[in-house]
Amino acid sequence: MEVKSKTYLYRTSVRWTEQRKGVLAAAGKPDLQVATPPEFKGHEGIWSPEDLFVASVNMCTMSTFLAFADRAGYTFHAYESEAEGRLELVGGKFQFTSVILRPRLTLAPGGDPAKAKDLLEKAEAACLISNSITARVTLDPTIIEG
Amino acid sequence: MEVKSKTYLYRTSVRWTEQRKGVLAAAGKPDLQVATPPEFKGHEGIWSPEDLFVASVNMCTMSTFLAFADRAGYTFHAYESEAEGRLELVGGKFQFTSVILRPRLTLAPGGDPAKAKDLLEKAEAACLISNSITARVTLDPTIIEG
Repeated sequence: MEVKSKTYLYRTSVRWTEQRKGVLAAAGKPDLQVATPPEFKGHEGIWSPEDLFVASVNMCTMSTFLAFADRAGYTFHAYESEAEGRLELVGGKFQFTSVILRPRLTLAPGGDPAKAKDLLEKAEAACLISNSITARVTLDPTIIEG
Repeated sequence: MEVKSKTYLYRTSVRWTEQRKGVLAAAGKPDLQVATPPEFKGHEGIWSPEDLFVASVNMCTMSTFLAFADRAGYTFHAYESEAEGRLELVGGKFQFTSVILRPRLTLAPGGDPAKAKDLLEKAEAACLISNSITARVTLDPTIIEG
């Protein structure tokens, strides 16, 4: 990562190992085995590029929520989120057409659910990965009172 | 992952752990620790959503190359690729504006470099993640004769 005014660079590498498998690497971070998924003649039980794409949207939204909650002084008990990305043929080419995010936020005792919903919606709208993809991103939140 | 004609669904989840860290999970796959990167008040040495986004483009291109090479009966010795994603402020919002892919392909003895270049270019053009993002994807290949 290098900084140049408001520009950030992210570098990762991938190295083919065998069949449809490889290893992802980034400086100073643990290696991660990756593979083509089974439905494209790849392998079970290994992170695929499709998984990583959907995960990046999901994690970015959480990351943005954590920043917004921190800035607002809003504390909560737990956050977990399932994301579902839909890959479809469009004009003969596969692309991700939608990503549904289903965050489940458990509030602190007495926490304000309306404020939680507002922060989640603002986080989804500001997520920089969502801003960088063509798929429609939809938020389907569950708020659990503490 | 579920199949419904030519539609595939990819599900991953993320769970907040502490500070700006979380754990990514997908059914049957190893968990991966993730975090907001340091430049956004996060943590060093942990995979960030930005890393995963760039990695997904890089891995998808390799995956597509492996499929095309297999289909063409083209064998090679080694493939590794560095990818660099550029995150910039555009109209007040961060987004990825470009991803540069630098595959280094080592040919088998007597392998045809022109064919290799053609397969790499076709893989980049067909990569389903590249088809799903707004950033410009550029291929800067190095072909090493075997």
